[in-house]
Amino acid sequence: MSKVIADISMSLDGFVEADGRTPEEPMGVGGERLHEWFFDLGERAVADVPAMGAMVAGRRTYDASLRFWRADGPSGPARLPLIVVSHSVPDDVPANSVYEFAPGIEEGVALAKEAAGGQDVAIMGGAETICQGIRAGLVDELSIHLVPVLFGAGTRLFEQVERHVHLEILRTAQGREAVHLRFRVLPRER
Amino acid sequence: MSKVIADISMSLDGFVEADGRTPEEPMGVGGERLHEWFFDLGERAVADVPAMGAMVAGRRTYDASLRFWRADGPSGPARLPLIVVSHSVPDDVPANSVYEFAPGIEEGVALAKEAAGGQDVAIMGGAETICQGIRAGLVDELSIHLVPVLFGAGTRLFEQVERHVHLEILRTAQGREAVHLRFRVLPRER
Repeated sequence: MSKVIADISMSLDGFVEADGRTPEEPMGVGGERLHEWFFDLGERAVADVPAMGAMVAGRRTYDASLRFWRADGPSGPARLPLIVVSHSVPDDVPANSVYEFAPGIEEGVALAKEAAGGQDVAIMGGAETICQGIRAGLVDELSIHLVPVLFGAGTRLFEQVERHVHLEILRTAQGREAVHLRFRVLPRER
Repeated sequence: MSKVIADISMSLDGFVEADGRTPEEPMGVGGERLHEWFFDLGERAVADVPAMGAMVAGRRTYDASLRFWRADGPSGPARLPLIVVSHSVPDDVPANSVYEFAPGIEEGVALAKEAAGGQDVAIMGGAETICQGIRAGLVDELSIHLVPVLFGAGTRLFEQVERHVHLEILRTAQGREAVHLRFRVLPRER
């Protein structure tokens, strides 16, 4: 069965963006540190990047990234469908793009599962969208790329989860620029 | 040379204590989850528990733990010296105990290095004492036992570090109850 995997890079102190975001530095000042592992081919071979059939992102992530992604979306030439969770559909969606829009996380994940044709679905962020997914019980696994830096401030990944979510460790892979961790989200009744 | 290693258990969302601490539950409600790995002999064999000659703890940790530790301190029969960072010396220190008191983190680490006789020194917490050590440039390595749980609230480990502390990944060991991580703290001039 198709799984839903929240997949994101996080500093050791829990931030997915550094402080001081601007349109030019959408990850905050120095925040690109979180993605260095992704641009290192050796490290990507070590990393546990989920194979997937479709992705889900929040509207803020879409707005901040569209100028980099253009019509092809975050997967580039692979052109995986990206479902954007958003109350409204923006006016300036590129023609012939990979984007679809859904009004809430449930609808977004359902659309993505349909689009993924039996493959897994990745929720790529931001923090708020991942927490919405966890709260709604929609996230099967967490894929956390833990980056060896303390930001001290910024956007926290887990600011909006309910209390005491129990996980199971599935996989650990040590790279140079990140420790790649995979957890199963356990049912709440534990 | 003797290294200073901050060694502590942390939830995936960055907490070293859960919410709702009481004298009976000094780790907060459900907070003992963070220490389950420590009481599992198989897991301790996997874990990267630093060998050490002396320890440093904050006063709050001492006050909350004395009734469990008694005169022998956190290392039990090994009776490793424990330096407590505290503005004052409490009246009720047990006779023939392992405790010494130091007014600040610098003095505490210096005393512990002396007592360790060339072996490493562990700063065992709490969060405030570890952050003081990092801010003072006294911590060589972080030994984080990352526990697969999201607490959502409690005491954060890295609440009081300065911004953008860069680390190097030294070691990763996957247990069942924790991922045991070791990082080098890099000089600030990076």
